[in-house]
Amino acid sequence: MRYFSLTLLFCSALPAEPAGQAVRAVLDRQVAAWNRGDVRTFMQGYDNSAATLFVGTGVIRGYQRVLENYLARYATPDQMGTLTFSNLEVRPLGNDHALVLGNFHLERSAAGGGNADGIFTLTFERKRGDWKIIADHTSASAPPRRD
Amino acid sequence: MRYFSLTLLFCSALPAEPAGQAVRAVLDRQVAAWNRGDVRTFMQGYDNSAATLFVGTGVIRGYQRVLENYLARYATPDQMGTLTFSNLEVRPLGNDHALVLGNFHLERSAAGGGNADGIFTLTFERKRGDWKIIADHTSASAPPRRD
Repeated sequence: MRYFSLTLLFCSALPAEPAGQAVRAVLDRQVAAWNRGDVRTFMQGYDNSAATLFVGTGVIRGYQRVLENYLARYATPDQMGTLTFSNLEVRPLGNDHALVLGNFHLERSAAGGGNADGIFTLTFERKRGDWKIIADHTSASAPPRRD
Repeated sequence: MRYFSLTLLFCSALPAEPAGQAVRAVLDRQVAAWNRGDVRTFMQGYDNSAATLFVGTGVIRGYQRVLENYLARYATPDQMGTLTFSNLEVRPLGNDHALVLGNFHLERSAAGGGNADGIFTLTFERKRGDWKIIADHTSASAPPRRD
């Protein structure tokens, strides 16, 4: 009985953190990890699940394959370059999901493949209190205007 | 008091329709409308809101602009061609949202611009009982395999 009461208390005491703030913190940690060459910590932004989706010109399914894809495509510091996200918008979808729209820019040397720009929509889910990317659709874009 | 009871009754009697079935029905109606050249009925799949997003190589904001973009890009039956969706997956996000992954194929004459293929992720929201697209991210893809 005491256990049950404490559980209720704990649940009701979970912080009603706005999705926007929590999700932006995840993205900030991803950028910081990327820019120190740490793909594995960058990947912690994604849900560690076989259902995780990365949609580019095709579909990559599952956390492990998304990780392998990043490791293969960005094998060197030159290829990783310096990442920035911009124009971020977070739209809550109920209490436990959010849609994020944004642009990325990769500043890279010619040896690393040159600069790259893209646009992404991320679907986040709150799992055990942590906001994780469950689906990432990233596509090429013109460089965003930086007014 | 009676009003209140009836309201409760009505709410509890709302059909607990699975997102998947309802969302696929919306997409089926979109394809049928497109293939009879009816862009305005096709657009009824989208939420008629200034917040509606279409993400391609850039972002188009608002139902009206998304409509205008479709009307401009697909001004003739040749340009509209014949649309099919394939590889559809619907993932519920709570009770009132869903993520849809799929491919489109546009079969077109050379005069219409030739065939086109793409991959999309759609965010649906249930609004007053109707499932509507609130965000559409569509990007180019290799033609999907049709095993």
